[in-house]
Amino acid sequence: MAKSKSNIVIHNPKWFRNEPRELYCPLPEQRMLYAIHLAKQNVLEKTGGPFGAAVFTTDGHLVAAGVNLVISAGFSLVHAEIMATMNAQHLLDTHDLKQSELGPLELVSSAQPCIQCYGSLYLSGFSSLITGATGEDVEKIGFREGPVPENWVEQLEAEGMLVTTEMLRKDAQEPLQLYKNFGMPIYNSGV
Amino acid sequence: MAKSKSNIVIHNPKWFRNEPRELYCPLPEQRMLYAIHLAKQNVLEKTGGPFGAAVFTTDGHLVAAGVNLVISAGFSLVHAEIMATMNAQHLLDTHDLKQSELGPLELVSSAQPCIQCYGSLYLSGFSSLITGATGEDVEKIGFREGPVPENWVEQLEAEGMLVTTEMLRKDAQEPLQLYKNFGMPIYNSGV
Repeated sequence: MAKSKSNIVIHNPKWFRNEPRELYCPLPEQRMLYAIHLAKQNVLEKTGGPFGAAVFTTDGHLVAAGVNLVISAGFSLVHAEIMATMNAQHLLDTHDLKQSELGPLELVSSAQPCIQCYGSLYLSGFSSLITGATGEDVEKIGFREGPVPENWVEQLEAEGMLVTTEMLRKDAQEPLQLYKNFGMPIYNSGV
Repeated sequence: MAKSKSNIVIHNPKWFRNEPRELYCPLPEQRMLYAIHLAKQNVLEKTGGPFGAAVFTTDGHLVAAGVNLVISAGFSLVHAEIMATMNAQHLLDTHDLKQSELGPLELVSSAQPCIQCYGSLYLSGFSSLITGATGEDVEKIGFREGPVPENWVEQLEAEGMLVTTEMLRKDAQEPLQLYKNFGMPIYNSGV
């Protein structure tokens, strides 16, 4: 049982490590297009589920990104939003992104967060959130979102987070459809 | 920005790696005492927040465990329940603990899960959950639990999970009190 005591290592995929290190996306739609690009690439490269997320400064500079790695990494936890969060916290050397010297940070996700990723937003320190595909879009291809409260946007806004949903929703649906067309695995563990 | 593209590594603390590799706890209370032991040890060793969690087979054999590493690892995500989940999934080579050859698995946590860890239970594949200290106990020393629904137990039970709360609650409060008495950091990032 020694393995259970060893370190946890999560590998970002090779193609992902070759993505541009600097990117300037002054328009929110440009940031969303990048998150969608990551989601699509993750499907085409067969490295995970059809989800991508990226962290930007409020003036549009890319800080970090992440893709869904549930199957390739073997952890139920590593959704795109979580990987983007961890990659950003790793880069900025803080568990609290509010403490970053880069100022307020924005999480841009190709799809609406599931219950776990929604919950993680209460801990990670993002100041704003933009999502593309809706929870309905995600569930339509078979994934489960879990009991995200109906008023999740209002709940986050009540905490001071700026939330924008359904940005470029049609474009954001494409990686989901692609994943479904490829017949790739829907990996809900459920309870 | 190269660092953001590298791997994510989470180190379990040294003392934790020296914990017993095999443990047989046929009584649920014995399992809870082990989770509480981990929480307390994490405070005494100053490796993280006052929280411990362990994964057992239904007949009481230890599979994996985890402690809160938010500050030492620098990730908001790595609560005790998350580390126990990742350590178990790593050991058993599956993102879905329902697929484990060990049969149904139980998560035992020294305290009630926060909103993120509650959400993670919809993905990880545990069949049962036991908690010690309540959300109220956790918030009393300054940590935030987030918007965990009031009927969270019923919601998980509706999914088929067996949930037992407030087991050895008084003992489970001890690591929380110890952490507070030591004046150790309360690290809510919040939104």
